[in-house]
Order: sequence, then structure tokens, then C-alpha cells
Amino acid sequence: MHRLTVELADRSYPIFIGQGLLGRSDLLVPYITGKQVCVVTDDTVAPLYLERLRHTLDGYKVDHVVLPTGEAYKNWATLQQIFDALLARRHDRGTTLIALGGGVIGDMTGFAAACYQRGVDFIQIPTTLLSQVDSSVGGKTGINHPAGKNMIGAFYQPKAVLIDTQSLGTLPDREISAGLAEIIKYGLIRDIAFLDWLELNMPALRALEPGAITEAIARSCAIKAEVVAVDEREGGLRAILNLGHTFGHAIEAHQGYGQWLHGEAVGAGMVMALEMSRHLGWLSDSDCQRGVAIVESAGLPTRPPTDMTSEDFIRLMAVDKKVLDGQLRLVLLRQLGEATVTADFTAAALDATLRKEYS
Amino acid sequence: MHRLTVELADRSYPIFIGQGLLGRSDLLVPYITGKQVCVVTDDTVAPLYLERLRHTLDGYKVDHVVLPTGEAYKNWATLQQIFDALLARRHDRGTTLIALGGGVIGDMTGFAAACYQRGVDFIQIPTTLLSQVDSSVGGKTGINHPAGKNMIGAFYQPKAVLIDTQSLGTLPDREISAGLAEIIKYGLIRDIAFLDWLELNMPALRALEPGAITEAIARSCAIKAEVVAVDEREGGLRAILNLGHTFGHAIEAHQGYGQWLHGEAVGAGMVMALEMSRHLGWLSDSDCQRGVAIVESAGLPTRPPTDMTSEDFIRLMAVDKKVLDGQLRLVLLRQLGEATVTADFTAAALDATLRKEYS
Repeated sequence: MHRLTVELADRSYPIFIGQGLLGRSDLLVPYITGKQVCVVTDDTVAPLYLERLRHTLDGYKVDHVVLPTGEAYKNWATLQQIFDALLARRHDRGTTLIALGGGVIGDMTGFAAACYQRGVDFIQIPTTLLSQVDSSVGGKTGINHPAGKNMIGAFYQPKAVLIDTQSLGTLPDREISAGLAEIIKYGLIRDIAFLDWLELNMPALRALEPGAITEAIARSCAIKAEVVAVDEREGGLRAILNLGHTFGHAIEAHQGYGQWLHGEAVGAGMVMALEMSRHLGWLSDSDCQRGVAIVESAGLPTRPPTDMTSEDFIRLMAVDKKVLDGQLRLVLLRQLGEATVTADFTAAALDATLRKEYS
Repeated sequence: MHRLTVELADRSYPIFIGQGLLGRSDLLVPYITGKQVCVVTDDTVAPLYLERLRHTLDGYKVDHVVLPTGEAYKNWATLQQIFDALLARRHDRGTTLIALGGGVIGDMTGFAAACYQRGVDFIQIPTTLLSQVDSSVGGKTGINHPAGKNMIGAFYQPKAVLIDTQSLGTLPDREISAGLAEIIKYGLIRDIAFLDWLELNMPALRALEPGAITEAIARSCAIKAEVVAVDEREGGLRAILNLGHTFGHAIEAHQGYGQWLHGEAVGAGMVMALEMSRHLGWLSDSDCQRGVAIVESAGLPTRPPTDMTSEDFIRLMAVDKKVLDGQLRLVLLRQLGEATVTADFTAAALDATLRKEYS
């Protein structure tokens, strides 16, 4: 088992990574202060892991809420189901929410914990590769608004994160690829050595070889934790974690949430960021192609949807949270392993990227 | 003009109190970092003060949202109107929300600011006496749930609070009395000298004599600021600010939000807390009667609704946020000027209080 700590002063918390952790009550008990627990999960994950977790929580007063699966339900109406359940079962300020599921469940449960009675404890048990390497670290919680993704939310840190790599065994290949998108992102923005490692280990990762997958998750979480420790509320550095996300969010919004997986949209979005960095002369053709090849080797799309125009992108990116005073800012690459958040790019480079002039 | 500071480390903020502050752009400008501002107000306050504030904000890109008036609208659907307006007008993370109105507007605007893009700045301009002495200090924000008041919310501090005592001139007497309930509360829980002062100055306060009203607001905010500085997130001491509120919330819930004013329910609730403290032998008959007389002199109800039974109270108080592990806790008085939060009371004393056995 790996253990790492996200360092955020009095909001610091541990991440445990290993096989079979869902059965380890000794890892959970120190982070539950009251007697009440409410497990929030979805109708895909519940049949697989809910009973096992309930068994691990023997001795607590455990309630659970099973939500419909998918990004399309990451909205207020679904969040309200959590509040309704907590109030109906008289959960008080001493309760602990446990998010058992992917990123949508983690984001909604975290936001519910942030808002319920103005804040209660929560623990994350992410069950998808994407959520294990992304939402486990950093405390971003929230829901979507029809006008934009994650527009309503809070920065709110969990008390602990439990990553059981066995839960990846039930994931479709497409979801593994989606998780690999975020893993590749960490290499691209900050760690060229990790990128080298990923090129060598991609087949092992796609086959879920335990040693490789644990290593990839631990390195990803460590890179994210390092960035978040410097900039918890995304005043500056933290925005580099959004490589590919401004383009990716536009793709998701255009296709309708839930059609492209988030990681797939980020995969295509990272390729757009690589290509735009090349158009700006920051990346060589070969470095750009190397980046694109890694994305492709993970089984991810490397092109945006054919039916999306430049105008679609411009319109949908205008509501990005990185827009400041009307100025679009993008995460681009100065070189492989070094990202920057900038508004300092030519309109021509953006235009060529959106018109899909790729190498 | 009085100025005081709520001391909360990097979340500290100033409160300005005086006549005509709504026209003082010099007090607002230092607390607005971007170019975008969105004023949130209601259809009672908008016709009175919105244009004046817009004039004071000359030079900014000012949008506004006018919500329906009243506690009955303190819900998600109304909050959504704020998010819709912000997104429709492309407000980004650098925007500043300004709450112009009473406690409902302050609570909803603060919660919208806490959640919009995971947190933007906000400034409070409370226009009712109750909101000036209560929600100006402490950062409690939120909305109601059908099952309980303020069940969904956040602790989120404003950048500054501007209290213009001139705005009290348009308030009905009933709302002045409601504000006086919270002012009396500060004396009862923590400051016997302030209670003495209130007994002498009650006629001047009800007549809105400027010197008296400014003094009462400043002392109330100072007492609340002192308590909140010790305990921002209501782990302990801060709960004493809820004197009369557990009973009061039950009254509001029973009557339907918006029938009794919050301050009126707190007035009757404080009398119940005084009477219960007397039943416990903590207050003498004469001290209890003195407390009740002050509440009465402010023009407040001193009895709960005649149609509310013991059972109604028990049922409605069970969802109070001070309930921990199923145990009801109440704010009671050890003596006038000294409150305590306790579960250590006899069932008989609670029962006598709920059965309305008053002195």
C-alpha cells in the first residue's frame, strides 16, 4: 500500500492506494468522528461495492443514497436527493458522507458535504481510474449548470481518500483510457521523466498490471498534490492542471454531457493544446507528435468531433472559469513537461487550432 | 461614521456604520477587485435604493438581479436566478456580488458568491436593522430546505460591510422591533452593561434616534465579531448567538416561513429560553421578568403561537443544527449576560417551557 499526504495546513489529508482497501476498516475508522455515516453512490457502483463497504463500516449507523449514473445527472435535482436523504434520516453536523464512485459522485458528494448544515466531513472512495488520479486530490467539488460545467461548487477537502485498485477490474476499457488521459496530463505539464515512463508502460497500464497501475496513480496524485499545495484555490499555478480542459469542456458541452467521457474530451483537448503550442512555435513538430502519440497509445481520441466548428469552440469557451475580464486564457506547453497558463498567444494560432490544422 | 473590523486572519473585513454610506464610493472601491459587479436585491428594496447604489458604482460594469421579497423565496429556485444572471452576463471569477437588502438577500447572495465558480467576492449592504446587527458579522450564508431553515449553506466571509442607517427610515415598525430582538440578544448572552443601556434607550431606538441606533448597531456588531473571532465555524462558543433561535426556528417552521418575522420568532424564543432557565433555577423570577420586559418593550411577542403544542416544538426542534448524535442542545442563561450551550437540562424544565408555564 502507498500512502501520501496532501499538504494543506489544517486541511491536510492522506491518500491510501492499494489492492483491496475497500475492506480495510482500520483505514476508515480514524477519519469518522461521529456515529452517523451516509454512503453516496450510483446505480452502477452500488451493486458492485456497496454491500462490501457497508460490511467494512459495521458498527456505524450507515445510510446510503443511490443516484442515477452519469454526468447528465450532475445537477441540483440530484444533489437535492442527497440533502433529502440526510434530512429524512436526521443526519446532524457530526455526520460523515462517503463518496463511493467516480468523479461525478465525488464532486456531488463533496459539494453536498460542503453545503449540508454549512459543512460536514466527507471521505472519498474513488472507483474509476479518472477519479482516482484527478478528483482525489484538490478538493474541487460541484455541479453543472446548463450554461457550463462545474459552474456551481466549492473548494472543500475530504478527510481521507481510499483508492482500491481492485475496483478498476470492473471498468470498461473506454473508462481506463479516459483515466489515462489525466495521467498523461501530469507528465505533459510537469514531469518529462514520468512521460518517458508512461511511453514504456502504456501496455501494462492498459492491461491493469497491478504494479504499473499503482505506480501511475501514486505519481499522478503526488504531482497534483504538489501543485495544489502551492495553490489551493487556483489563483495561479493550479490552473496548469487544466491542460486540455478548456477545449475539452467545450467538446463535452457541445456533444451534451455524458456522450464523450470527460477523459476522452480531455484527450482530444490535450492534442489541441499540443497543436496550438506547435503553431506558436513553442513545441517542435516532433515533440508535438510525440505528445499526440502518447495520447493515441492510451486509446484516446486525438481529434475533436468532426461536427464542431471554430465558432462552436469560441462560443463555448467564453464561459470558461479561466476567462478573466473577458480575456480567454489557455494552458499551453512551453515544452514537454512544462505548462503555462497564458492569454499571450496569437489569434492566428488559436484560429489554426480551432480550424483543425493539425500536424 | 463607526468602523470596526471582524478579525478572521486572512478573511478579516471591515464594517462601516453611519448615515448616508450608500453614496460613499470611496468606501466601496477598495473592496472591488475587477470591473464586473452584480447587485442582488429584492423587489421591495430595489425601488428605494438600487439606482442610488448604481450611481455610486459609476465606472464599473454593473448588472443587477431583483428577486421576489421574503423568506418564502430563500430557496434553490431563487438562488438559481442569481446564477442564471451571472452566467448570461458572463461574470467571471473576478466579479464582485453586492447584497443590497435584508437578511434573506444577504444569506442568498453570500451563498451564491460562495458557490459561483467555487467562490467569488461579495460585499454586504444590509438595509434592515436585523440584517445590520446579525448577518453583517459571521459569514453564515445559505438557503432553506422544506425540512429546515438554513440547512444548505456555507461559512463565507464578505470583503466589506456597509451599514447605512438612513435605510432604516423606510422600514415598518414591526421590522424595527424584529431587529431589536437580535440587539437585545447580545445583551442577554454576553453584556449586562449593554442590557442596562438598552433599558434606558429603548424609546430612542424605536424612534430611530440616529445617535442611539448607531451605538446599538456598533455594540451589537462588536459583540458578535468578538464571538465569531473566537469560533468562526461554530465549534463551540459561537452557538450562544443562537439564544432563542432553536425555539424561534420551530415557530417559523410551524407558522410557515414569512408569517412571523424571524426577529419576532426570536423574541418569543428568547422568552422561552429565559423561562426555561428560570425553571432550571438558573435565573431568579425577577431576572427572568426583567429579560421578558425588555423583549416586550421592543414591541416583540413574548409568547409562542397559541396553536403550537409541545409536540410541535419537539418535532420541529429535532432537526436543529445544534442537535448532535440525537441529543438536543439549547442556548440557556446561567445569568443575565451569560449564556451557555448545553444538553444538561431536565426533561421537566423543557416540558414546562413547551407547555407554556410562564412566570
